[in-house]
Amino acid sequence: MATSNRVTMTSASRTVDLRSDTATRPSPAMRRAMAEAEVGDEQRGEDPTTLALEARTAALLGQEKALFLPSGTMCNQIAFLVHCRPGDEIICAANAHVFGSEGAGAAALAGAQVRPIASASGIFGAAEVEPLLRAPRPRAPLSRVISIEQTTNRGGGRIWPQAAIAELAGLARSRGLALHMDGARLFNAAVAAGVPAAEFAHACDSVWIDLSKGLGCPFGAVLAGPADFIDEALAWKHRLGGAMRQSGIMAAAGLYALDHNIERLAIDHANARRFAERLRTVPGLLVTPVEDATNIVFLDLSSTRSGAAQLADRLAAEGVAVNVEGPSILRIVTHLDVSQTDVDRAAALIAEMITGASA
Amino acid sequence: MATSNRVTMTSASRTVDLRSDTATRPSPAMRRAMAEAEVGDEQRGEDPTTLALEARTAALLGQEKALFLPSGTMCNQIAFLVHCRPGDEIICAANAHVFGSEGAGAAALAGAQVRPIASASGIFGAAEVEPLLRAPRPRAPLSRVISIEQTTNRGGGRIWPQAAIAELAGLARSRGLALHMDGARLFNAAVAAGVPAAEFAHACDSVWIDLSKGLGCPFGAVLAGPADFIDEALAWKHRLGGAMRQSGIMAAAGLYALDHNIERLAIDHANARRFAERLRTVPGLLVTPVEDATNIVFLDLSSTRSGAAQLADRLAAEGVAVNVEGPSILRIVTHLDVSQTDVDRAAALIAEMITGASA
Amino acid sequence: MATSNRVTMTSASRTVDLRSDTATRPSPAMRRAMAEAEVGDEQRGEDPTTLALEARTAALLGQEKALFLPSGTMCNQIAFLVHCRPGDEIICAANAHVFGSEGAGAAALAGAQVRPIASASGIFGAAEVEPLLRAPRPRAPLSRVISIEQTTNRGGGRIWPQAAIAELAGLARSRGLALHMDGARLFNAAVAAGVPAAEFAHACDSVWIDLSKGLGCPFGAVLAGPADFIDEALAWKHRLGGAMRQSGIMAAAGLYALDHNIERLAIDHANARRFAERLRTVPGLLVTPVEDATNIVFLDLSSTRSGAAQLADRLAAEGVAVNVEGPSILRIVTHLDVSQTDVDRAAALIAEMITGASA
Amino acid sequence: MATSNRVTMTSASRTVDLRSDTATRPSPAMRRAMAEAEVGDEQRGEDPTTLALEARTAALLGQEKALFLPSGTMCNQIAFLVHCRPGDEIICAANAHVFGSEGAGAAALAGAQVRPIASASGIFGAAEVEPLLRAPRPRAPLSRVISIEQTTNRGGGRIWPQAAIAELAGLARSRGLALHMDGARLFNAAVAAGVPAAEFAHACDSVWIDLSKGLGCPFGAVLAGPADFIDEALAWKHRLGGAMRQSGIMAAAGLYALDHNIERLAIDHANARRFAERLRTVPGLLVTPVEDATNIVFLDLSSTRSGAAQLADRLAAEGVAVNVEGPSILRIVTHLDVSQTDVDRAAALIAEMITGASA
Repeated sequence: MATSNRVTMTSASRTVDLRSDTATRPSPAMRRAMAEAEVGDEQRGEDPTTLALEARTAALLGQEKALFLPSGTMCNQIAFLVHCRPGDEIICAANAHVFGSEGAGAAALAGAQVRPIASASGIFGAAEVEPLLRAPRPRAPLSRVISIEQTTNRGGGRIWPQAAIAELAGLARSRGLALHMDGARLFNAAVAAGVPAAEFAHACDSVWIDLSKGLGCPFGAVLAGPADFIDEALAWKHRLGGAMRQSGIMAAAGLYALDHNIERLAIDHANARRFAERLRTVPGLLVTPVEDATNIVFLDLSSTRSGAAQLADRLAAEGVAVNVEGPSILRIVTHLDVSQTDVDRAAALIAEMITGASA
Repeated sequence: MATSNRVTMTSASRTVDLRSDTATRPSPAMRRAMAEAEVGDEQRGEDPTTLALEARTAALLGQEKALFLPSGTMCNQIAFLVHCRPGDEIICAANAHVFGSEGAGAAALAGAQVRPIASASGIFGAAEVEPLLRAPRPRAPLSRVISIEQTTNRGGGRIWPQAAIAELAGLARSRGLALHMDGARLFNAAVAAGVPAAEFAHACDSVWIDLSKGLGCPFGAVLAGPADFIDEALAWKHRLGGAMRQSGIMAAAGLYALDHNIERLAIDHANARRFAERLRTVPGLLVTPVEDATNIVFLDLSSTRSGAAQLADRLAAEGVAVNVEGPSILRIVTHLDVSQTDVDRAAALIAEMITGASA
Repeated sequence: MATSNRVTMTSASRTVDLRSDTATRPSPAMRRAMAEAEVGDEQRGEDPTTLALEARTAALLGQEKALFLPSGTMCNQIAFLVHCRPGDEIICAANAHVFGSEGAGAAALAGAQVRPIASASGIFGAAEVEPLLRAPRPRAPLSRVISIEQTTNRGGGRIWPQAAIAELAGLARSRGLALHMDGARLFNAAVAAGVPAAEFAHACDSVWIDLSKGLGCPFGAVLAGPADFIDEALAWKHRLGGAMRQSGIMAAAGLYALDHNIERLAIDHANARRFAERLRTVPGLLVTPVEDATNIVFLDLSSTRSGAAQLADRLAAEGVAVNVEGPSILRIVTHLDVSQTDVDRAAALIAEMITGASA
Repeated sequence: MATSNRVTMTSASRTVDLRSDTATRPSPAMRRAMAEAEVGDEQRGEDPTTLALEARTAALLGQEKALFLPSGTMCNQIAFLVHCRPGDEIICAANAHVFGSEGAGAAALAGAQVRPIASASGIFGAAEVEPLLRAPRPRAPLSRVISIEQTTNRGGGRIWPQAAIAELAGLARSRGLALHMDGARLFNAAVAAGVPAAEFAHACDSVWIDLSKGLGCPFGAVLAGPADFIDEALAWKHRLGGAMRQSGIMAAAGLYALDHNIERLAIDHANARRFAERLRTVPGLLVTPVEDATNIVFLDLSSTRSGAAQLADRLAAEGVAVNVEGPSILRIVTHLDVSQTDVDRAAALIAEMITGASA
């Protein structure tokens, strides 16, 4: 069994990796599907498995066309590159992935300015966006894109309600903006809400899904939108170096995941809720899954005697990996490779450590 | 007498233009200085008047070298282009000129992301900046510049205190950032505070003054900094199309202004205070010059029955031009072409209109 | 009398500056026109003199609208920024100003690639452009602009014939490209060819004239094109920092030049021809004004015993400034501040020095 | 058996795909290696197989560190982004992949201008580069990178000789430029020349190998260079969206290829030579493999009666796919999936068709 160079186990028990759902490893069945994939040269449009994945994703999202890309970050960046001209402005939550975790790519690549909205939940409405739409003046940036994250990662895995999306889509349309959805965890939202993903996605001018998070693939994301949007996106895929060759191998994992790993996200949500419940009674610990949360739990340690980094180190020593988000904030994400036993064990350890530290 | 195509006078009395101190027109003496300027080809470094203006500005700001540029916006953009590489981050007040009024140039030109700090006054401290400095991770933008505005335009003409600047300079130095000062109204701060401009400017890694605002010139700004910074800035001056030819004509206005128009800024400040005082007693009107304000007054009409645009229109009909900053916000700026009589007249009209509307 | 810091005179006689027509200094009458200009805030569209210059230039060039800008470089860069999206391609002569003398601004600002055509004369035809138009493929740059220089500076001041321009305009139109004219010396072409400037300019999608070269102004250039082009150009003018305030002072010089300094360009052409004639008989010296040349003369010293830099130094010592273009290439440009006596003196000195060196 | 949507077979015989060595499909053994790969989260530096591939590639190329990326285009673009600042200049052959086949990415992403050298072979020397190095002037681009392609694709699969590389490396070092090698077919050069790849690569400041061409992998390229270069490259990998997750699956193919598919490139070279020999006697046909060619053959049909597109169509109808490079130019590339029988069959068909057409 592989030991990573960053997460070190000290006992025989297997590591429970709760840092992110990006940690999922392809299952034997998924690996088999990859090994048997039919392939061709993707850059020539000849990889049948990639074409199948693109067609299927477009249909799932209620969009015309789709494009297989190496990562969700490339999906976001390409969407901005197509929607914007240099000097345009993108409105999103201040804790959005595109503002803090993509190397200021919107500015560096598209030359677009990000206008962040302070929103702890990551959710906002037309009332918050409207005052930010700049009057057209030669020296003002042109407001061009509203970008939302389904679910909101730093907002705690919350689901953007359909009504809120529809409201923003209406505003965007009426004011000449594009509505973009970073759908890194869109299927978590769909499964938790019990609606097809297209219900959340069809009103957007661009939207993507991540294969390498809850869906359990090793690689890739799929960007969808109108045909002319995707045609322009294809040129940027080449320019950024995202064009591949026999990508059917990786696309096969995506098709496998769409078949087998969507409905099971409900298990991850149940595990996250269970984990949160177990910790709710720990004195001083603030646990923040909300009703519309999915597979993400935040622990606020500021009223305990434990620091986040120190607690994470102690957990790592027990084979439990969690993410440090701030001096007193930990993030826990459930996924395909985390069982009910795993979350119970992690919760018990955390409870014990915090209670012990407070004693 | 010229009538502009935007401000229309309806009576014989002259227009009082309180929209901005950019409205100042060169005086006969300044025009004479321009007409008599000694000139050469600036792009070859042969314009003696430009060289004199640059040397004098550098000295006034306690910096090594300076560069004459067409505008303050170009000063800001060039400073960012020299300090940043694409993907870097600039921290400033959310109401800063560089975030809202330069066409998202930081993103479009330097590829840099602006991280705004919410601050009504436009002033902030190390305590607000420090949490925004991103931990070095491959996917996080690199925090690279702190940008401040002296005085804070949308913050109400407030003076950045020397201590606050020193604090930020210390933080910037210790964390590898550059401190940049948009000194559009630096001389207003210097005159109001009774200290040399260099006291505010010398700790900055780049700083510029505007000639076309309170100083009364028709054109230009001067960017200053260390010699190697200015050498790189010169290449960007050429690339952006800011290199000129016989710029001594315009530089002569700058030299004239440095001789004659700095100390008199005190008159503008007195006029602004006088104007504010006159309006303080109008019921419902919120007047916001603060103790450290200079030549800018904001009027908040939200508790009156007047809308900003409508009041501005009525004032224009009387030959008084003011700036509409929001649905119920007006901005008034005093300057070289505004006399005590002018502000008295404007204040009387505004008081009358608001009181009338409320009756 | 001003001595520049770069050109040093050793005798009482005045310097003859043949380095470039950018060296022209505003005449007393032009200075007077500037000093008396009616002005307003240009950024608010209220400067009457600037508006007049823009309207007049648009009419002169057979274009809808025009925009006053600080320099020809900014005209070129803004044209590319409006015509192109990042990843597009611009086709021009390899010796064009936009390829070698604008800091790679097309790439740095517009993100556009320049595709140079080798052409000693700077002139090329549809036959040379057509094979460079890339087939539309996702990974190929999109051919977007053909850029021509009237007259061709490094090509020897040659005039682009109307027929050649019409041919490129036709090709551009039929293939979805824009035809851009860098008209730095367009009036030289118009005067020499005896046709209105509009004859050369009206078929272009964007075109500009320089005020600071043969026209004798200290500053500025005017970019013209269709109304929607100029509207977008205005946003870029602000973003690049080219927006000004009381620019009427500088625009007044432009209006003066349009009145007084166009027809007299014929004198410069006569002086250039005279200069070339005087040197044609110097053994080993290759003088290259061609029939359609205007105010530029190239001297190729490679078959003489003189090096370019050394000859330029010797001439400078005699108060004659010329431009070194290569190890054995000198460029001479005639202009408003160069008289017939001046070119005779310069030619005599050069002949003497070369003959002496060869002796 | 898969039929692609672009290459249509008309008989039972298998398609011979000679369009490019990018057409190689992973063999059963390579697929097995992928399916069994040990993986982790690459973005956290925890994927052991990716780390192994990077370490091994760095060693093979005589470089300090390496980085696994989705494509060769991303390797080129990231190298330029790290070496250049906006406004810098890259010198390469006019037929280089980076100039014509990467969507003008150097300009669009790095803001760098490409200065092409006309060279049919794709090879050039210090004597051609030196006159292009621009003198340092504020308005000139800064010459920053020399980029070479090993082997030269459009130059006919030619090998850059070690001595030529050393010469450019010396020039680059002495003038402050970086030497970058696009090593898309570096192993072809190494095998053909009978020297280790490091002999060609160690003197470069950045160099990459492609896994998806002759090496037969479905995906990926590896960029190598000094440690600080790779550290900066990592930030760009994230920004461009090239960071992956369990990339060990794809990296395993790379490791497999380094073990099994390098030496066998000699077979591809023999097949290319054999193919060329068979066609050399066809009247009017110009076959251009040269002595230092590897796996690429160009056919110039201009003296035959066949057009390139038409011949390619007829060949496709017989199950032989070739690349159309121009109206009368075809390119043929041999690789892992092309046997001696295949090239014999293709050569016979081509000979027959051309001879028939001429008859």
